[in-house]
Amino acid sequence: MCELLGMSANVPTDICFSFSGLIKRGGGTGPHRDGWGIAFYQGKGVREFRDPQPGFNSEIARFIKDFPIKSTVVISHIRQANVGKVSLENTHPFIRELEGRYWCFAHNGQLKGLELLIDPNGERFMPVGDTDSEAAFCWLMSQLAKGRGQSPEERQSLIKSCADQLARLGVFNMLLSDADRLYVYCSTKLHWITRRAPFGVATLHDDDISANFGEETTVNDVVTVVATEPLTTNEEWVKMQPGELAVFERGELVNT
Amino acid sequence: MCELLGMSANVPTDICFSFSGLIKRGGGTGPHRDGWGIAFYQGKGVREFRDPQPGFNSEIARFIKDFPIKSTVVISHIRQANVGKVSLENTHPFIRELEGRYWCFAHNGQLKGLELLIDPNGERFMPVGDTDSEAAFCWLMSQLAKGRGQSPEERQSLIKSCADQLARLGVFNMLLSDADRLYVYCSTKLHWITRRAPFGVATLHDDDISANFGEETTVNDVVTVVATEPLTTNEEWVKMQPGELAVFERGELVNT
Repeated sequence: MCELLGMSANVPTDICFSFSGLIKRGGGTGPHRDGWGIAFYQGKGVREFRDPQPGFNSEIARFIKDFPIKSTVVISHIRQANVGKVSLENTHPFIRELEGRYWCFAHNGQLKGLELLIDPNGERFMPVGDTDSEAAFCWLMSQLAKGRGQSPEERQSLIKSCADQLARLGVFNMLLSDADRLYVYCSTKLHWITRRAPFGVATLHDDDISANFGEETTVNDVVTVVATEPLTTNEEWVKMQPGELAVFERGELVNT
Repeated sequence: MCELLGMSANVPTDICFSFSGLIKRGGGTGPHRDGWGIAFYQGKGVREFRDPQPGFNSEIARFIKDFPIKSTVVISHIRQANVGKVSLENTHPFIRELEGRYWCFAHNGQLKGLELLIDPNGERFMPVGDTDSEAAFCWLMSQLAKGRGQSPEERQSLIKSCADQLARLGVFNMLLSDADRLYVYCSTKLHWITRRAPFGVATLHDDDISANFGEETTVNDVVTVVATEPLTTNEEWVKMQPGELAVFERGELVNT
């Protein structure tokens, strides 16, 4: 099991608050001792930090936790290795460029039988490491590459169809983004919450920290946070259903 | 003008020493105030840090300078913007995956007329930002993708031929790596040095720092450093010739 954390916001937003809850699970309060990674989109660019070391005591994690990086889309992952050795190239999130956009992907779960989907002659995108997650991402991106020129609706429907196929091979909870949209697919367990004015005080589940969002934000801010388990104890999180794809843009749920 | 810094080594080596000389030029002793980036290969994985802010006072640069990341191949770049706005997506080095390897690229110079080379229907790799450098890299990678299954010698010859074509469009000093090899192409200005036992004391040009490599290394270590200008004052650097491609692997020059 791995922990996923995603964010979509309509203004560049600092995710420090949610990240400090997640990072505690990297060997602190959870069993996820095999590395972590986080990608922050800023405009069309993406900034990534990753470490095969446990998040709980990683120097880089400590730096990120304290360094305010404002971003509109964030994808983060803390890993417990099941398939693939513990190494930098096996650490999520994974990134590939398609049609002049960086696509970023993180996965929770295990998949069996991927070789039945993947073209033995090599897909356009190929994994660098040896995880089932990166292989699934490369297959998914190779399918998207075949749908060049699709409308956003067609692309969303292709992503749903690919995710459904992958979910038949095991557990496939996914975060995927192209800088604008955050695609969230639930196979077994994912929760999300959209925060907007008036902002209240949120209390983290794993840490003795609370933040008053009203102090940090304006009345127009909309911020959605997605996580494997609810990160706060005093808010209502939406529990996703198996087989559900939720798509967020600028903090808002855009599909129905 | 931008500053390039590359490293190839036969054992994971800490580049802090050379990086601290380079980073000073990011607004400190040089005119390169428009961002910097660095990529460290560790195995097949790559760890990157980039910042559109000047290196001279960037928080992330300070962190990297002090945090010992041991790597076998490093590519770094400090930018003075000529083409393309100052933004994260325009910050070198650029990375793309081809055939299950991460390729990393940094460029110094300006190119004019790239549109004559690039397929107007879109190449396989496409730039995310709007620099001539990233467009050149995507074109180069698209040519390499067409040469699938080539031998290392054929690939090297294709890289040389592409670099020659790009150099006809302006100034094209380049660092390129696939994790194993560091390809260095000189259009106007690049220097390199290979350090091996017995190691002496090196003195940085831009900083009052010297390091005794003998204390940090074993007798088997071989480390090549490539830079726009020599970084040290008390060593003999090899000055590259216009149109020359030098290829390093595990610290050693492997082409002739």
